[in-house]
Amino acid sequence: MVAEFDLINKYFAPLAAEGAADLQDDAATFSLPEGRDCVVTKDMLVAGVHFFQDDNPADIAFKAVAVNVSDLVAKGAHPVGYCLGLGLSGDEDDSWLAAFAGGLKAAADAFQIELYGGDTVKCPGQLTLSVTAFGDLAANMIVRRSGAKVGDLIYVTGCIGSAALGLLARQGKIAPHRSFEQSYARPQPKLEVISLIRDFAGASADVSDGLVADAAHIAQASGVGAYIHGNLVPVTAAARAAVRDKPDLLETVLTGGDDYEVVFTVAPHSAVEMEACAASLDLSVSHIGEITSDQRIFVADQDGNEISLANTGFCHF
Amino acid sequence: MVAEFDLINKYFAPLAAEGAADLQDDAATFSLPEGRDCVVTKDMLVAGVHFFQDDNPADIAFKAVAVNVSDLVAKGAHPVGYCLGLGLSGDEDDSWLAAFAGGLKAAADAFQIELYGGDTVKCPGQLTLSVTAFGDLAANMIVRRSGAKVGDLIYVTGCIGSAALGLLARQGKIAPHRSFEQSYARPQPKLEVISLIRDFAGASADVSDGLVADAAHIAQASGVGAYIHGNLVPVTAAARAAVRDKPDLLETVLTGGDDYEVVFTVAPHSAVEMEACAASLDLSVSHIGEITSDQRIFVADQDGNEISLANTGFCHF
Repeated sequence: MVAEFDLINKYFAPLAAEGAADLQDDAATFSLPEGRDCVVTKDMLVAGVHFFQDDNPADIAFKAVAVNVSDLVAKGAHPVGYCLGLGLSGDEDDSWLAAFAGGLKAAADAFQIELYGGDTVKCPGQLTLSVTAFGDLAANMIVRRSGAKVGDLIYVTGCIGSAALGLLARQGKIAPHRSFEQSYARPQPKLEVISLIRDFAGASADVSDGLVADAAHIAQASGVGAYIHGNLVPVTAAARAAVRDKPDLLETVLTGGDDYEVVFTVAPHSAVEMEACAASLDLSVSHIGEITSDQRIFVADQDGNEISLANTGFCHF
Repeated sequence: MVAEFDLINKYFAPLAAEGAADLQDDAATFSLPEGRDCVVTKDMLVAGVHFFQDDNPADIAFKAVAVNVSDLVAKGAHPVGYCLGLGLSGDEDDSWLAAFAGGLKAAADAFQIELYGGDTVKCPGQLTLSVTAFGDLAANMIVRRSGAKVGDLIYVTGCIGSAALGLLARQGKIAPHRSFEQSYARPQPKLEVISLIRDFAGASADVSDGLVADAAHIAQASGVGAYIHGNLVPVTAAARAAVRDKPDLLETVLTGGDDYEVVFTVAPHSAVEMEACAASLDLSVSHIGEITSDQRIFVADQDGNEISLANTGFCHF
């Protein structure tokens, strides 16, 4: 087993931000320009719960950073840095650690986010990651879940469901497909979404628990309801084919989660301008529903009948 | 088992900072006045490694916050807030969670630090806490481990060794003593130390791995050595009595760690002023050694002979 200081020097110090003193200290510093708020978020990932212990270590590392970046993006904040809590099960050898650090590097490059510190501990038998990410945005400009108004249009970025199908494929429950695996292993929150959310979204959340659950979080926090057109939820051609073959998978798509896209609301009078802005940023956005006054979530099929969903999202307990 | 949202609403939302939107969102915001740096630090604690699963839940919570505050204090930074990653083993019931939240509240009051968010997940069989704390200090004024100079005096705050003796007592290896238990269960970093470190310390670290190891971290980061007078290391009367009865315990005192005091260096010409300032703050500080040029740590007994130490500090692997 690699000693903690060697591990830091060999694998993590090369990833450190300037204010992190090569991770040789108890703490790191950063500063924000005047008039900017710091935004903090934290997601913890546990082997056997959020990923498989034998997943590719580079993917585990990449995903741990990406899911936190996803929260920042959904709030309209630019990623700045992160701290990594790494609880090693004891099974991780040098090549595992090298691959893991490679995944962190890939995430740093993709998301322009630097390592500011962390802690490495023994977590016998159960690899555990805890990432706290921080970003910045103009003061008092965070986009909350609670800003949705009756009549707002509901949009989502990208495509939904591929990651959840990737999990099923990983478990051998459906046929594998490279795009599903990729979506599950390497979620790709897009930094271009930040300005779109900042400029147009009334309310916003990342799609982690599942599209329906995360739309419900927005509705609940805003004291409103949501009507979602199930047939307008954007999916890839491969996901569409999978659902065609096995209609039960529609529920997986709508509620499976792990998408790390953004669901957000837009005032009707801003929708055209928002869509034009998205197009100019080369971002795909889809209108999937409307905010209603009836304080419930209604997911409709193409005939307007309610789709009955057993699970409305990932529950941690 | 309590559902995640209920758990947040019931136990954690009352602890939330103003910028944390009652913990109903994916992220929280805070701002610092102009000219201040944000300081971040992270410590992870795992049941069976850093504490006992059956420790008092209020103590577990208090300590998880305190050990992070200790890092901020040692860097000369004022605590602002923290994020909590809580990996529940599944054995924690409602009364456990209530007591745990009570410990967080006690830490918030003691250290003037607010909850900004976090994540609650399943960590089957192994309670795991991950705290990221952030503080603030004047721009570019962080006190690093690397600022020690040959000839500087080495000081430590408070008393050393009681927490390590508390762990031995907890394990039934030595006779229990209330002061040992208290030091182990409820470390008390002192906010008054912040200004002392800021105004006088050349280099500084909190005593978590053990006094000798943490002094060695300073020496190593500064490219110097340290001479520590073992007989000048401050201990409580109870610890002194324990060592008198069982001389082997001297090593426990010097290397056991978990003290969450601060070891720091002071230029000789500032020592008198620093001691007067400490006295005015009602802080106990002890001169325990000097920074040397020979790039090693020498721990001397009262006759100047080297005390041989098998373990020089807590190793995580």
